Amino acid sequence: MERLKEQGVVLGIGDDAAVVEAPPGSGGALQWLLAVDTMVETVHFNGATMAEADVGWKALAANISDIAAMGGEPRHALISVSAPRAWEPARVRRLYDGLYACAEHYGVAVVGGDTTSSPGQLVVAVTVVGTVTAGKAIRRSGAQPGDAVFVTGPVGMAAAGLHYLLAAAEAGGGQFVPLAAAEAAGTAALVQAHRRPAPSVRAARMLAARGTVSSLNDISDGLASEAWEIAEASGVKILLREGQLPVSGSMASYASCAGIRPLEWILNGGEDYVLLGTISGSDAAAAKAELMEAGLPLYLIGEVEAGQASVEMITEGKAGIDPNRQYPKQRTRIDKRGYNHFTD
Amino acid sequence: MERLKEQGVVLGIGDDAAVVEAPPGSGGALQWLLAVDTMVETVHFNGATMAEADVGWKALAANISDIAAMGGEPRHALISVSAPRAWEPARVRRLYDGLYACAEHYGVAVVGGDTTSSPGQLVVAVTVVGTVTAGKAIRRSGAQPGDAVFVTGPVGMAAAGLHYLLAAAEAGGGQFVPLAAAEAAGTAALVQAHRRPAPSVRAARMLAARGTVSSLNDISDGLASEAWEIAEASGVKILLREGQLPVSGSMASYASCAGIRPLEWILNGGEDYVLLGTISGSDAAAAKAELMEAGLPLYLIGEVEAGQASVEMITEGKAGIDPNRQYPKQRTRIDKRGYNHFTD
Repeated sequence: MERLKEQGVVLGIGDDAAVVEAPPGSGGALQWLLAVDTMVETVHFNGATMAEADVGWKALAANISDIAAMGGEPRHALISVSAPRAWEPARVRRLYDGLYACAEHYGVAVVGGDTTSSPGQLVVAVTVVGTVTAGKAIRRSGAQPGDAVFVTGPVGMAAAGLHYLLAAAEAGGGQFVPLAAAEAAGTAALVQAHRRPAPSVRAARMLAARGTVSSLNDISDGLASEAWEIAEASGVKILLREGQLPVSGSMASYASCAGIRPLEWILNGGEDYVLLGTISGSDAAAAKAELMEAGLPLYLIGEVEAGQASVEMITEGKAGIDPNRQYPKQRTRIDKRGYNHFTD
Repeated sequence: MERLKEQGVVLGIGDDAAVVEAPPGSGGALQWLLAVDTMVETVHFNGATMAEADVGWKALAANISDIAAMGGEPRHALISVSAPRAWEPARVRRLYDGLYACAEHYGVAVVGGDTTSSPGQLVVAVTVVGTVTAGKAIRRSGAQPGDAVFVTGPVGMAAAGLHYLLAAAEAGGGQFVPLAAAEAAGTAALVQAHRRPAPSVRAARMLAARGTVSSLNDISDGLASEAWEIAEASGVKILLREGQLPVSGSMASYASCAGIRPLEWILNGGEDYVLLGTISGSDAAAAKAELMEAGLPLYLIGEVEAGQASVEMITEGKAGIDPNRQYPKQRTRIDKRGYNHFTD
């Protein structure tokens, strides 16, 4: 109830529609952000990789991330759950528990819900309403030559977590993989990145307030694809420096066990829900320092150049894909759907 | 594009979220209405009863109706479509065509969309954002003894249309039933009521502006169920007068062919998306006259009485269920799920 009041909810779930106030004191100084996202069982998850509560958390988190990716503040959510007929009410309840836990964590008021029974698989559609200072929404199209390219957290962990979960589920006969198993395997951080993504809302707000962020996307489809979106929308070349990409320790060890190049997950993985953006080159270091002060990471991973829209990777010396080889410094074009054209 | 500008859309589909202005000149005088609704194939429709474009139209219309049922103005919509893998792109396109036709008709700007492919059946979830004068949203809970009860259109036609469609589909081997077949059978108006419901947005706005409407619901689940919702939320008795219920001519003739009591459809049918409400008794006739002036119907179908929450039907003389019989005037309690307790 406190949450509803705080978010200007005049009337929540229960009538035909929810009623919300313009945020107090906004006096027309705010614009509203609206985003919708859908999660479908077996396309986005299955019973072995995600518990019901994880599905609820992630469905909302993905939408909150969209609001963050505009530099906005998430406020209200509306939920549509179409649950298989065979589901007991307790399963739907657990889904909502996870969803409400995420809402609570990010200060979002759930103001609408529609639960239907479905002859098929689970479908969860979430709409989030947020606000942003009028005229200050950060689009994909503003990247300028000279800007620095950043991410707000390690990339590829969620994909590595999914890789582990699918392998463990196969080994376990399709049973749900408990977190304890992941802990034993040293992959708990990866599994949590997949199941309970943590959108960069605070980082987005701090970055937006600086006024120097020229473009912003959340990484739902992989770094390569999101970088291409910015490059094409802005009409610029995005350069990524391989040696500056943040690689989590647990991803690196799991990748080496699994015999997979971490760069695959980083470029093509997706569902990390950290932010990729560009910021005025002259403000990048100060922004990084401000976020660090607040305990938030900001990784500067490349630059924006003038030129035909494209994404390229700069590999320097030892930072190549095979740590035991010495690579010459080189530029390689990154494919939109990922890292297919690396030459060594 | 015109529509987007008109509805204060700063940024539509294409980035992480849409951006909308507070409506021009609102200066905090408006509140926002948010509603979500889901349509699931085989629960709410199937390939014989609805074309793709009908599904799109109806999914949006159901949500627009929720905004109307608060006395508000629908403005923006966000769409989540989870389409079976087997669907060709043209089918999804036709669904969106119907949805956009409805949006255009009601002046709604579609500002978000997420289309996913699904291993199962079609699920369409729609969120609509609307506005209402601050403090003027009409809830279910305001009905007062002495108020008149009204509906904004005939009730039960959509259920009659569905009844015809299911029968015709069965006779035709499950093939889609074309409107021409319904025209030949004299059921076209019923079929259109089912496939292309027309929410009472104009009537709602005119009624809300009078300031005398004390409660309002849209008829998505049948007159009986919606009247019970108002009765329970308001703590009053709702009296319906059977002789004053609007019965469409085509429904009456189809009912008599099919050997079904129209009252079944009226009370339990649902999906009519006309409005059921209560209005100050002293303003009812003037409201009816104002709507008639604008070419809109308003049927006064009963009164609100003090007493324990319930819904009762008054049957007078010849207006009973069997037109060939003479009934004594009597009161009968109407069951929440419909007309189960009629005594004759």
